[in-house]
Amino acid sequence: MAKTPTPDERLMRRAIALSRRGFPAPNPHVGCVLVRDGEIVGEGYHHHAGAPHAEAAALSVAGERARGADAYVTLEPCNHFGRTPPCTDALLRAGVRRVVAACPDPNPVASGGLARLAENGVATEIGLLQQEAEAANFRFLSAMRMRRPHVTIKAAVSLDGRIALPSGESQWITGPAARREGHRLRAECGAVLVGRRTVEMDDPQLTARIPGVVNQPLRIVLDPRGRLTGKERVFDAAAPTKHVTGPVDLNELLVELFNDGVTSLLVEGGGTTIAGFVRSRLADAVELFLAPKLLGDGPSWLNGLDLGNLAEAPSLEIDRIKRLGPDLRLSAHVRYRS
Amino acid sequence: MAKTPTPDERLMRRAIALSRRGFPAPNPHVGCVLVRDGEIVGEGYHHHAGAPHAEAAALSVAGERARGADAYVTLEPCNHFGRTPPCTDALLRAGVRRVVAACPDPNPVASGGLARLAENGVATEIGLLQQEAEAANFRFLSAMRMRRPHVTIKAAVSLDGRIALPSGESQWITGPAARREGHRLRAECGAVLVGRRTVEMDDPQLTARIPGVVNQPLRIVLDPRGRLTGKERVFDAAAPTKHVTGPVDLNELLVELFNDGVTSLLVEGGGTTIAGFVRSRLADAVELFLAPKLLGDGPSWLNGLDLGNLAEAPSLEIDRIKRLGPDLRLSAHVRYRS
Repeated sequence: MAKTPTPDERLMRRAIALSRRGFPAPNPHVGCVLVRDGEIVGEGYHHHAGAPHAEAAALSVAGERARGADAYVTLEPCNHFGRTPPCTDALLRAGVRRVVAACPDPNPVASGGLARLAENGVATEIGLLQQEAEAANFRFLSAMRMRRPHVTIKAAVSLDGRIALPSGESQWITGPAARREGHRLRAECGAVLVGRRTVEMDDPQLTARIPGVVNQPLRIVLDPRGRLTGKERVFDAAAPTKHVTGPVDLNELLVELFNDGVTSLLVEGGGTTIAGFVRSRLADAVELFLAPKLLGDGPSWLNGLDLGNLAEAPSLEIDRIKRLGPDLRLSAHVRYRS
Repeated sequence: MAKTPTPDERLMRRAIALSRRGFPAPNPHVGCVLVRDGEIVGEGYHHHAGAPHAEAAALSVAGERARGADAYVTLEPCNHFGRTPPCTDALLRAGVRRVVAACPDPNPVASGGLARLAENGVATEIGLLQQEAEAANFRFLSAMRMRRPHVTIKAAVSLDGRIALPSGESQWITGPAARREGHRLRAECGAVLVGRRTVEMDDPQLTARIPGVVNQPLRIVLDPRGRLTGKERVFDAAAPTKHVTGPVDLNELLVELFNDGVTSLLVEGGGTTIAGFVRSRLADAVELFLAPKLLGDGPSWLNGLDLGNLAEAPSLEIDRIKRLGPDLRLSAHVRYRS
């Protein structure tokens, strides 16, 4: 049987739930709940990059009532000047008496927040519901660990694994609920990548067309031979676009993106581009939107691994299966053999 | 909230559960429970074609205690001499006072059982939990309705829909739990069909290698140009085999199989053979065993529908998703546009 959660756990769980609301890419998800005398006096989350951090959002709700309050934050408060001043300063200024953090800050530039708070007489705790909080931030945390963006492969496919008819017709294989989640993934990752052929065949805009998105994802187009004209929709003004021409080393590209602040990348196809990431062992997760339709002909979502035998086949673990109207969403992570 | 089942419903549900135990193909699943004075005095099910019917099995357990008992049977007792004498006679002889059947017998040759019992003073009822009982027999009932075998497409595929590498290597894409269910499907359907190329590439035996199988499935090989030698494992003595050479009209083949007593057919591939059944609108259900592996190259489980556009794509409804170790089993039925 599940244990009854402690009051601390209940409040941290609330902070984690709040943290999931925003699209803060390339920043981490953070939620914060401020409690005084058993009453929630303020709460907030990091809504989008450039917006106030969760702590600042919660403090501005609480106002004077933050004095003497306990703060529950899903990630160790930052200790550096980025686009916003350090949260540790704000918490100290507000007179918070205790700070409970779920995860330590994995960003060496921003870390040290809890130590600084403790030096200034604030009671600090770390590790409460750390796993649950990490799950809400797995892409960001993977990026910090790997020093490159987390890579999610996304494809919307028929039951026979095809993304289009031989004619190129591909709109729409999946239904509206699946497409909506595809847009959420774009906003969640903050960067979207496709190959040249996908641009030519589908002319996608690659924006996140759902409510609540402030920062449109960075669009990245791999076009080694420079065949695109620049008139395609992916180059419109709706979002920034990186047009990558010339030979591409995916490892180098990812390091470059990471150095530019990208922490998560959604690779939307086509099959050859996806195969490139899998062959380079850079695909971390797969989000497959599976429509119960049969095409029978046309390109697969994964094209060209050149395996020598079945034992070499990259293997995944299925984390979640979700029904989306008539469609399925299959979420998996890749396990490469070492 | 679910209603508390009546005593009649509880007993019928038990009969339905019993009915599912056997591999009676091409006969229907039938279960029978005999109750006297609130006590179960006998129960049985149709274990395999050629074995006693459910009623006879239950009566032989009950012996003299069947006199004055109530019989719960999932299908109307048969009224004709087949491989076994009519169950109506046996029930009358045993002195059963009441017969409750879930489904009417859809087989015109065998029907009329309840009427005959009523004429002889037995209380009869029909329709109790009919839907649940029909679900246990959906392949057989479809065959009776369509006057051809129910057709299930079965494939074991990678996450990108492939059944083999370009080299032909395909053993094993799915794990042991999925393979076991594949064998169960063979026994359940009672007839298995593959194309010539599958025999050449995989040399499968196509038998049902699981405990409890008495009648091995009829194996059917489509080999229009007569290229197979007859030395392949599918032609061994482990089960009967039908080698179909010359041009094949799938509609005619199914009618012929139905007239030979086949009520359910498992089409195991390859992709071209499966596409033939889908194109002819003869595929009723799909059982996809999905391994979380990536192949990237090699044949798809469905190859060649020649659709003009996406709107023509056959559409399915997903009935069930089941995890089998690392793999998934996806059960769906096909909905053709009229």
